[in-house]
Amino acid sequence: METNLLLEKTDQQRNGLEKSGSKRVYLDYNATTPLEPDVIEAITVALQEAWGNPSSTYTPGRKAKEIISHSRESIAKMVGGCADDIIFMSGGTEANNFVFHTAIKYFWNVVQKAELNGVQVGPSQQGGILPHLITSNVEHDSVRLVAQQLMEEKKAEVTFIPVSKVTGQVEVDDVMSAIRPTTCLISVMLANNETGVIMPVGEISKRIRALDEQRPAPRVLLHTDAAQAIGKLRVDSQDLGVDYLTIVGHKFYAPRIGALYVKSPVTLTPIYPLFYGGGQENNLRPGTENTPMIAGLGKAAELVNKNLEHYMADMCKTRDYLENCLEAVFGTKVHFNNRFNGVARLPNTCNVSFLGVNLQGRRVLACCQRLLASVGAACHSSQEDRPSHILLSCGISPSVAANAIRLSVGRETTTEDIDVIIKDLREAVNYLEGR
Amino acid sequence: METNLLLEKTDQQRNGLEKSGSKRVYLDYNATTPLEPDVIEAITVALQEAWGNPSSTYTPGRKAKEIISHSRESIAKMVGGCADDIIFMSGGTEANNFVFHTAIKYFWNVVQKAELNGVQVGPSQQGGILPHLITSNVEHDSVRLVAQQLMEEKKAEVTFIPVSKVTGQVEVDDVMSAIRPTTCLISVMLANNETGVIMPVGEISKRIRALDEQRPAPRVLLHTDAAQAIGKLRVDSQDLGVDYLTIVGHKFYAPRIGALYVKSPVTLTPIYPLFYGGGQENNLRPGTENTPMIAGLGKAAELVNKNLEHYMADMCKTRDYLENCLEAVFGTKVHFNNRFNGVARLPNTCNVSFLGVNLQGRRVLACCQRLLASVGAACHSSQEDRPSHILLSCGISPSVAANAIRLSVGRETTTEDIDVIIKDLREAVNYLEGR
Repeated sequence: METNLLLEKTDQQRNGLEKSGSKRVYLDYNATTPLEPDVIEAITVALQEAWGNPSSTYTPGRKAKEIISHSRESIAKMVGGCADDIIFMSGGTEANNFVFHTAIKYFWNVVQKAELNGVQVGPSQQGGILPHLITSNVEHDSVRLVAQQLMEEKKAEVTFIPVSKVTGQVEVDDVMSAIRPTTCLISVMLANNETGVIMPVGEISKRIRALDEQRPAPRVLLHTDAAQAIGKLRVDSQDLGVDYLTIVGHKFYAPRIGALYVKSPVTLTPIYPLFYGGGQENNLRPGTENTPMIAGLGKAAELVNKNLEHYMADMCKTRDYLENCLEAVFGTKVHFNNRFNGVARLPNTCNVSFLGVNLQGRRVLACCQRLLASVGAACHSSQEDRPSHILLSCGISPSVAANAIRLSVGRETTTEDIDVIIKDLREAVNYLEGR
Repeated sequence: METNLLLEKTDQQRNGLEKSGSKRVYLDYNATTPLEPDVIEAITVALQEAWGNPSSTYTPGRKAKEIISHSRESIAKMVGGCADDIIFMSGGTEANNFVFHTAIKYFWNVVQKAELNGVQVGPSQQGGILPHLITSNVEHDSVRLVAQQLMEEKKAEVTFIPVSKVTGQVEVDDVMSAIRPTTCLISVMLANNETGVIMPVGEISKRIRALDEQRPAPRVLLHTDAAQAIGKLRVDSQDLGVDYLTIVGHKFYAPRIGALYVKSPVTLTPIYPLFYGGGQENNLRPGTENTPMIAGLGKAAELVNKNLEHYMADMCKTRDYLENCLEAVFGTKVHFNNRFNGVARLPNTCNVSFLGVNLQGRRVLACCQRLLASVGAACHSSQEDRPSHILLSCGISPSVAANAIRLSVGRETTTEDIDVIIKDLREAVNYLEGR
């Protein structure tokens, strides 16, 4: 039976998901999402009506400013913050880089102040004083590579906490043991992009808040990259107790723009601009505002605020159906790479390997006629058949990890879509096994 | 007679330019431009059809990649470069900040290499070695404040070359005299945002290329912020001989996104990423590409490639008509702040003061019923009645500068629009003089 996928037929065609008569089923919502029609509408209206410079004082400028202000409110609400806590940025990469930049600047400001008062900030492990950062070994490249770069340039010391091979999670105790007198930032993602495993960010926060009360400056600032969590989980910056939280539009049906939540910037949480210029975003992120994209981000946040429970339930139901079908059809030939006992994971993410010598993830996907999915992060899509370092870190063996496919469902994915791709996968696996 | 402004009536209404029955005439095209209908169409199509992650290997991803690649070609053509010379960025602020960041990194790399070879890079003026940067005193804040910040943080020495009070231009000899053995970057805008004065960037280039052949490293890198020039002048990176050139979409009827032209990045021109992440833009500017905005930028570039001569002629004709009307109606009461003998300026920019005690630019504009314009850069719109430091630098007296209004015409501005605002200005000036 032909099924409707994420969009009506005409939309399907427009979306390039129908090729040579066979409909495609997109199950790579963790890589990026299509835009919700309401979001496209908000962007289009802003493109036409709110093109004025938001810094201009006449009508077209004021209109743009109002849209931005309204969006800021919706986005703040989505993450349990105030409007003033939201700083618009070009995307998640900028937001994550920004946080590391800020932490380093904050550290040196503390050191400078302490020196003025004759106090010594604890020496680093390696003699000369350097800021110390803690992150996990399963972060997105826009965290991992920033940390590595800072280390290579001798601008910071970094501890990469390995996730548990039993739970796929960062262990709170490991994080706490890594803290030094020079530690100024902990950056742990809220949910992993490949496994969907949810990290104990709230727990880490509680423990470091208690510690912060006892120790001299620098404070241990806490950042979470919530790129994969927003729109799939309730994300509340207050409950999480974070200082910074990265928001990435294109993971929740919004356009390619992002924002950084900062808990009361300047007054409660240190923040140092990365760019200098025209003074926008309270001088914290200058550059003429991207009004239409901000309008789209705001509209997508509104949708999340209104429909999150419903999205979560639907995605979870579809993902569970998918996993049940995989088990029913493939039996012991499938291994789920992201089911850890008692560990919560995103409601939309299935990471599965078909066990067998010819069944590398890429090969299986290449043989699928309808399924569009990936073996891991899109930005690693050129990296041939190397098994995902994230899965290896989670204790998946190299041979199983090499066969992994990430299937991430979306808001409109139906059980009929699942039936289609199960058939597709069965044919692909049969074909590869028969070679 | 009622006139059509930049758009048809229905578009007018949509654009918020019709209020309480009286049409507005927007003459602030140097602050920002509306989007061309073709550009909006390109963005909208991409929002709907090319939402895939450009790093993904399946159809929706490849489609996005194709759009990006096509846009890159159009933008390269617009500035006389190759596709590989174009690096997409969030906007002009990022591009300008990026260039300064790169120059500093380049300098220290040169020093490190020289030290390894036992060569000494010339000492700075102040003892300890620091990179030296040269810029003008009339740059946009996204250059000026970056340079100031680097100076304050003792990361660079900066010479701000004052523009000539006779020509409004940076004098090439002044730039050359400022060069030190440690000079690694000259950043001079191509056209000033308030006066429209065109700077002798090509001349500077010729002189420093000759110098570079004679002196040891570091090279003197040359950057021009072409934000105000693109779409109003032919901008050819080869003729200009620049290493870096900033491209800002929203100044030429494109969306709020930008790009940096870099002459053969890495191979010919040093470049160091500011962000680390998913590897996009050859690792030089990671972050999932903003496909729809890139599509819009490319379409706007195509329009410039096709119609530039026509745009220039039209704008010049309208601006000249405007200046003639101002002279005819106001006689010696007007002073033009951007007419310097024998100096080329943008074809769309008129900077005018009405002479008199009560005729500050802001007051005059506030009394206008139809004219939408500004007294200078939009990002300074909150700065009350302080005369523009740019006009003061160009030799305009404080009392005249305080009365300045920048009138920048657009592609669709008509002589009828000019008639409307001349009437508006006459009424405003009469009213203020009668108080």
